[in-house]
Amino acid sequence: MSAIERHGVTARYADAVIHNDVIHLVEVPATSGADIGVQTREVLDGIERQLRTLGSDPSRILMATIYLTDLADCTAMNAVWDAWIPAGSAPARACVKVAGLVDPGWRIEIALTAAR
Amino acid sequence: MSAIERHGVTARYADAVIHNDVIHLVEVPATSGADIGVQTREVLDGIERQLRTLGSDPSRILMATIYLTDLADCTAMNAVWDAWIPAGSAPARACVKVAGLVDPGWRIEIALTAAR
Amino acid sequence: MSAIERHGVTARYADAVIHNDVIHLVEVPATSGADIGVQTREVLDGIERQLRTLGSDPSRILMATIYLTDLADCTAMNAVWDAWIPAGSAPARACVKVAGLVDPGWRIEIALTAAR
Repeated sequence: MSAIERHGVTARYADAVIHNDVIHLVEVPATSGADIGVQTREVLDGIERQLRTLGSDPSRILMATIYLTDLADCTAMNAVWDAWIPAGSAPARACVKVAGLVDPGWRIEIALTAAR
Repeated sequence: MSAIERHGVTARYADAVIHNDVIHLVEVPATSGADIGVQTREVLDGIERQLRTLGSDPSRILMATIYLTDLADCTAMNAVWDAWIPAGSAPARACVKVAGLVDPGWRIEIALTAAR
Repeated sequence: MSAIERHGVTARYADAVIHNDVIHLVEVPATSGADIGVQTREVLDGIERQLRTLGSDPSRILMATIYLTDLADCTAMNAVWDAWIPAGSAPARACVKVAGLVDPGWRIEIALTAAR
């Protein structure tokens, strides 16, 4: 059986799961109720911290799904995102407006896979 | 070319697809119109059956995306989910409210990857 | 470090990313405002073009997530989808209604993984 590595495991979810050299992670904002610029920064900081801890980095993301609660947040989110992605290493990316996130004060949630 | 294994294939979807030792599956409730506790149990039972048939189990899930139609269902869904996940083996998990699922009587749909 | 191949990279996203023999891609319609039949055809044509360019094809899709903005589009979308999927090779497939896509004239967005 191939090995699975789990980090930050609770009864409900893991902060990161690694298998076959692929990291799986989902990140939500630290500050419920903050504006989209702050929340995007928090989510991307959280992702970057995880990736670096696990021997990867933002240049090695494979696919990302960005869930927003308001499409009016797109421009501000993209400004933070575009500046954060290292040149030439953007992932495949889906971006959709959902009808809600688990905490009503969250404006963004990002799920992604990255190569170690 | 790397081998792909498909199970329960229709013209539209497969119940499960395996590649590189990774199982991909999507599960919906058996009982349209049932409450969230019943539907979550049905979805997780369906996932577990698939995983065991394919030589995996609920302790080997890598990433899960949970689509709900009502955030008021979160607590009851999580109660079933938390009890079902074997201790120490929770996956990366995204949970969002969508604007609708294909059958109007479905309250939940789960997509996931798991290691064989 | 395992190799990552990126195609069609902008500052924001890549058209396709390949790692471990798995292709990741996300496709949106070419014609904002067109009906669902046209947009589904455009999205699937775009996916097929990408896959063939990268040494894969529609018979090698592993998992697909279909985001719709209107569930009334399901039947017409499925008609195009079912005819496009080669017999016996349907992927695991999630299909949900989102609250919106980035361009208000888009009715569909598809994210998927495929084996090279």
